[in-house]
Amino acid sequence: MPRVSAHRRARYPWFVAIPTRFADNDAYGHVNNAHYHAFFDTAVSLFLARECGADFSGPRIDAIVENHCSYLRPIAFPDTVHAGVGLGEVGRSSARFEIGLFANEDDTASAQGWFVQVRCDRASGQPVEIEADWRAVFARHAIREGA
Amino acid sequence: MPRVSAHRRARYPWFVAIPTRFADNDAYGHVNNAHYHAFFDTAVSLFLARECGADFSGPRIDAIVENHCSYLRPIAFPDTVHAGVGLGEVGRSSARFEIGLFANEDDTASAQGWFVQVRCDRASGQPVEIEADWRAVFARHAIREGA
Amino acid sequence: MPRVSAHRRARYPWFVAIPTRFADNDAYGHVNNAHYHAFFDTAVSLFLARECGADFSGPRIDAIVENHCSYLRPIAFPDTVHAGVGLGEVGRSSARFEIGLFANEDDTASAQGWFVQVRCDRASGQPVEIEADWRAVFARHAIREGA
Amino acid sequence: MPRVSAHRRARYPWFVAIPTRFADNDAYGHVNNAHYHAFFDTAVSLFLARECGADFSGPRIDAIVENHCSYLRPIAFPDTVHAGVGLGEVGRSSARFEIGLFANEDDTASAQGWFVQVRCDRASGQPVEIEADWRAVFARHAIREGA
Repeated sequence: MPRVSAHRRARYPWFVAIPTRFADNDAYGHVNNAHYHAFFDTAVSLFLARECGADFSGPRIDAIVENHCSYLRPIAFPDTVHAGVGLGEVGRSSARFEIGLFANEDDTASAQGWFVQVRCDRASGQPVEIEADWRAVFARHAIREGA
Repeated sequence: MPRVSAHRRARYPWFVAIPTRFADNDAYGHVNNAHYHAFFDTAVSLFLARECGADFSGPRIDAIVENHCSYLRPIAFPDTVHAGVGLGEVGRSSARFEIGLFANEDDTASAQGWFVQVRCDRASGQPVEIEADWRAVFARHAIREGA
Repeated sequence: MPRVSAHRRARYPWFVAIPTRFADNDAYGHVNNAHYHAFFDTAVSLFLARECGADFSGPRIDAIVENHCSYLRPIAFPDTVHAGVGLGEVGRSSARFEIGLFANEDDTASAQGWFVQVRCDRASGQPVEIEADWRAVFARHAIREGA
Repeated sequence: MPRVSAHRRARYPWFVAIPTRFADNDAYGHVNNAHYHAFFDTAVSLFLARECGADFSGPRIDAIVENHCSYLRPIAFPDTVHAGVGLGEVGRSSARFEIGLFANEDDTASAQGWFVQVRCDRASGQPVEIEADWRAVFARHAIREGA
């Protein structure tokens, strides 16, 4: 059924652990699909905070333009998700992040996807250029296509 | 920036209103991207409950295989979202639902996307054939491509 | 088991409808307890927006100091919750809101509770006096103790 | 403003770390009050899973009857919450759990509260006696009132 083959951990250069919560499970007893996008969002935000020093209350924000997720195997509380993060294409203002979600000790992803975000001025909402130091961090964390 | 042009209401044969909640807004003051997928999920579930008589505690469940969203304009509490639902391709076990989210009185979508779900046996997790009466309802609610 | 008797609708002077969402249900097939507090929060915010003209991006914010909920009967998607709101004690900066949650057409509450919030300056976080016009609206929406 | 004095870590016999998520922050830039109850819920569920071997898909469920939270200091993403758990009064079917939420390395709580839950038969919803081995675990994890 899944139209994609599951990624391995080696594809992703950066990882963070996200424990599931009781309320993440829906009536089917698995983490609800919308929460996977909250995992994506949280993983990339932590990458930006820890690697780039992002300040979420500052004058610039990151706006998501498009996102996508492929669901390969269910995740359920109390699993811990290990989210792998890597960069795809980076433009002047926009960057594509790829994320793989690995349950507990698994080496193949339970879900994988991506989102494109645009760096914007908080006040005007207009796109701004991605900072040079961020760009350098992004270059060091490119997705490992072959892995 | 958005790579797609915004859909109009006429594209979608079925609608339901989903009021936003205070907690939907994130630190950027807009509804967080993950909640858009909860809107998709809720809209299609209500379509299935009202039009097909779906029972979410019954022996069959719908598992999401893949989802996607394009974000065109921010939505923020206390906006009410009007979610349009229509069917794309329907297979033996799987169906593609398209969803457009229209803020308040807008005729162009603030966000639009789709998901593919597979009808499964709850106990085994194996795909089962979509019921004939559901199939008839789906046929009457096809997306209006030209609109 | 519940240590309180269920309130009736007549106790509450102001109502708003909050449809449940698919993802509100947890693994036990009912709306998770944390979401009841999001219903409280949303109901009072809508009361403040509609009756007092509250602006959630303005220089003043409302900080919750304490909240409480008694759970009398489960609520489950796709129920619609009708949230009743009324004012308890109002001080210089703080106000106590009582909220009752009524499922669909029920006249007795499925859950009821309250929270105390304090009007604060957004920048300093310090308490400020509740506006005179808000105070007048609050006085007109006191809880009906006898009802 | 807070009507209670902040608990210290020593009050709680059992701890678990719960990292915040980007979407936990609301429009005021802090974790929304409803999520604190999801932290309570998750902390106690993990206590029951790890210490008592609780199975959340089994024939018995825990229904929350009442909950309460006092908010002392804001928590915000990307803080990690350290949730302390301890037992208050334990009856035939019901147990009172107290929870303190400590941000990062803090020794005084940012929020503290409790909930009462009742052990029930999943099918009938009727209260059942708490298992003897659970009761023994509960006795070893009583709240340390003096601490």
